[in-house]
Amino acid sequence: MSLQLNCDLGESFGSWKMGLDDAAMPHIDLANIACGFHAGDPLVMQHTLSLAKQNNVTIGAHPGYPDLAGFGRRSIKTSAAELKAMLLYQIAAIDGMASTLGLTLEYVKPHGAMYNDMMADTAMRETVMAAISSYHRPLILMLQSTPEAEQHEQEAQEAGIHLWFEVFADRCYADDGKLLARSQAGAVHRTEKMLSQVKQLKEHGTITTVSGKTLRLRADTLCVHGDNMDGVNAIQQIRELIKSCV
Amino acid sequence: MSLQLNCDLGESFGSWKMGLDDAAMPHIDLANIACGFHAGDPLVMQHTLSLAKQNNVTIGAHPGYPDLAGFGRRSIKTSAAELKAMLLYQIAAIDGMASTLGLTLEYVKPHGAMYNDMMADTAMRETVMAAISSYHRPLILMLQSTPEAEQHEQEAQEAGIHLWFEVFADRCYADDGKLLARSQAGAVHRTEKMLSQVKQLKEHGTITTVSGKTLRLRADTLCVHGDNMDGVNAIQQIRELIKSCV
Amino acid sequence: MSLQLNCDLGESFGSWKMGLDDAAMPHIDLANIACGFHAGDPLVMQHTLSLAKQNNVTIGAHPGYPDLAGFGRRSIKTSAAELKAMLLYQIAAIDGMASTLGLTLEYVKPHGAMYNDMMADTAMRETVMAAISSYHRPLILMLQSTPEAEQHEQEAQEAGIHLWFEVFADRCYADDGKLLARSQAGAVHRTEKMLSQVKQLKEHGTITTVSGKTLRLRADTLCVHGDNMDGVNAIQQIRELIKSCV
Amino acid sequence: MSLQLNCDLGESFGSWKMGLDDAAMPHIDLANIACGFHAGDPLVMQHTLSLAKQNNVTIGAHPGYPDLAGFGRRSIKTSAAELKAMLLYQIAAIDGMASTLGLTLEYVKPHGAMYNDMMADTAMRETVMAAISSYHRPLILMLQSTPEAEQHEQEAQEAGIHLWFEVFADRCYADDGKLLARSQAGAVHRTEKMLSQVKQLKEHGTITTVSGKTLRLRADTLCVHGDNMDGVNAIQQIRELIKSCV
Repeated sequence: MSLQLNCDLGESFGSWKMGLDDAAMPHIDLANIACGFHAGDPLVMQHTLSLAKQNNVTIGAHPGYPDLAGFGRRSIKTSAAELKAMLLYQIAAIDGMASTLGLTLEYVKPHGAMYNDMMADTAMRETVMAAISSYHRPLILMLQSTPEAEQHEQEAQEAGIHLWFEVFADRCYADDGKLLARSQAGAVHRTEKMLSQVKQLKEHGTITTVSGKTLRLRADTLCVHGDNMDGVNAIQQIRELIKSCV
Repeated sequence: MSLQLNCDLGESFGSWKMGLDDAAMPHIDLANIACGFHAGDPLVMQHTLSLAKQNNVTIGAHPGYPDLAGFGRRSIKTSAAELKAMLLYQIAAIDGMASTLGLTLEYVKPHGAMYNDMMADTAMRETVMAAISSYHRPLILMLQSTPEAEQHEQEAQEAGIHLWFEVFADRCYADDGKLLARSQAGAVHRTEKMLSQVKQLKEHGTITTVSGKTLRLRADTLCVHGDNMDGVNAIQQIRELIKSCV
Repeated sequence: MSLQLNCDLGESFGSWKMGLDDAAMPHIDLANIACGFHAGDPLVMQHTLSLAKQNNVTIGAHPGYPDLAGFGRRSIKTSAAELKAMLLYQIAAIDGMASTLGLTLEYVKPHGAMYNDMMADTAMRETVMAAISSYHRPLILMLQSTPEAEQHEQEAQEAGIHLWFEVFADRCYADDGKLLARSQAGAVHRTEKMLSQVKQLKEHGTITTVSGKTLRLRADTLCVHGDNMDGVNAIQQIRELIKSCV
Repeated sequence: MSLQLNCDLGESFGSWKMGLDDAAMPHIDLANIACGFHAGDPLVMQHTLSLAKQNNVTIGAHPGYPDLAGFGRRSIKTSAAELKAMLLYQIAAIDGMASTLGLTLEYVKPHGAMYNDMMADTAMRETVMAAISSYHRPLILMLQSTPEAEQHEQEAQEAGIHLWFEVFADRCYADDGKLLARSQAGAVHRTEKMLSQVKQLKEHGTITTVSGKTLRLRADTLCVHGDNMDGVNAIQQIRELIKSCV
């Protein structure tokens, strides 16, 4: 599999619109679709799935904490049992709606605070993996590529699931392989730097950290953003670049 | 199929408990399980499904309007598209969670105001049927048995789905085949009348209306209630009676 | 009081933005502020109140049905007791937050389906009036100006509250004084017609219906829209016009 | 002020009942009333306020995190601005509803995880105090009495608010003045120990910790529970005891 582009989509809710789904969908490979807990409602989910189908885009569940007002960006301390149940509920909802449209859900990428909590906490990551592993058919877990990728791979093998590692196209990495906080200068790359980061990753499997260090990162997929036209344009440029690299 | 007992279950929510699910489950055949919109949360759904599994009870989705505060008993004017999407979402959620536990969802029974609106409005009933028909695998729709059963059967055939007709064990029927409003005297049968209504239905396929008229009602299943110990005792008595009738 | 401009504001929710509040606020007189049930969250409410304060805009509560996904546009069948309680809750919430910022809440304008249901149903209108009348300090009810204005005035007197009648600047009226349904051709006026409708109302206290009939409408306030720049531009033109008419 | 009994009430939601409010209310002094975010809905709030009025019970706001499914017991990482806004919203809602019934809201006691987070985190406590201080009329903050009471008193003075310190009647205290975790043996006192703890507090202003150490605790109020008849009986016994001590 070449470097796939994944993008959060279906983040509208009722009368509130978010993201340029129609513009972004034709240029991505993997659509992370919100499942109604932090964003998305049944009608939005159905529309997003149809759009993915029209564009032959692979679909994934994008479950989050149950927090519309916080858009799933506020960490909620849930028990393992609660977390597992809320993951299965959201995965099942989007999976069944996808099947109804003739689509097959392929993977799961937790959203926002749930994603960050999963990356930071081993026990929680095990719960997420156990939830996905318990699902009645195989689903891949997408998580962040870090220097701990091998350990994560090990955990996934024990859980009996597969992983996809994602690298952020437009984010600057700290030396420890974490993302530079958005509050720090240079945390988000402008177009040129973003493209050179993608190029380096594609050709050498590495990125250059904020201090100039070279860091090897396993990359199955690149996270891109379709929030606005700048983002959509960036997606198109990244896609051109990846194609030309092959 | 003999007369099956169906019961609403899984209506707790978070810290709030409702219904004696543990006591009722061993004595019923069909569990209508709330799907999180009017009652039930992912953890409650999981527990209810497990309980159904332990007791070999057939499971159905019990979707409702999105209204926890109103317990799905307040009619909400939704468009056909909204209704279809919210049905598929809830059905898919419980279906996938059931499959994960090795169970197979067999049917759908709308809850509360959604059920009443469906019975009262042909266009809405068509939307419900279309939603179920569009689902990626066959599911039966449970609805109220009335003198219009043949028309409903016809509608279902056109939609390509099967129906189960339910009769209410403890409710007195008006001459037009509708339930007497709960506000009216005699609307809810005490034990003896309830048992004789069930007996008559079982043996003759009829019930006696409030005015003494004999009404033929197609009956695949009887609706019973596990809200309290009186309800659970009634379920047990009905079950005994049905067994003895065979 | 001259013809005041009222506008729905504070309709964002969490990460979802709606309406050009910053652009519209300087040009209106009355801000109808969502109270968290159909739109608005505590942070959005606080921001909107601050904005109103900066612009010396009079504030009103804009309560709705508890339905974020439906944006309060879906009718929900509530009991009188439920409706009264949900009105008081929302009014109290915005009132106390306003007082905390040194503002005084002046009026209440129900939102969306709650507004339409109130206009269509006498019993419900009485419940709304009773709720406002029961509040611990006087608040004005804003409702639609129709040929039944006198009857509504009578109802309000009995309830012990005051009314403000609103006319829609950009909507075409049917001969019976109701708004032409948005689905009908000509239902929403373009700028020129809108301005002439406002001018006629200002100068003669009448509007011209779809069939050319002249209809007298009591008008305390005009409803305008700040959803987009076209709307904001229209607000400015209407304001110019009203000033020049004086 | 003698030792007041405070109790969480109004924790039902829609069709779900919780707590024996009717039985507990006559025996308490201070009612902590849920405000709709973790429990309580407008109708429940109104009923609880009326019940407090009938029993001459002083009322307080019992705001929580916006998490019905978690009953406000799951910590949610909110920004200071979000926390402040959600506190003001809930306080205002119950305050205005209380005023409408001729009652005066006197104090605020955060609920569940919000209470625990406030006790554990100085910055968050400052935000809670700032929110209450900003409210348009004075309200007292009820918090847990600990060996840090003086520091909390200092913080409150800086914020310009008053505090009420509460001691838990039925909970065993660790030597550091914190509550023994419920998971530990002996964490919750049976009746006899509970009564002797109350007696000692009343007469000497101290409690005896799990290891036998004597700990001085400032006590304005005792937290009691009306969840079930055992709790209500305990409330009555504590009240008898307090009266007899005077």
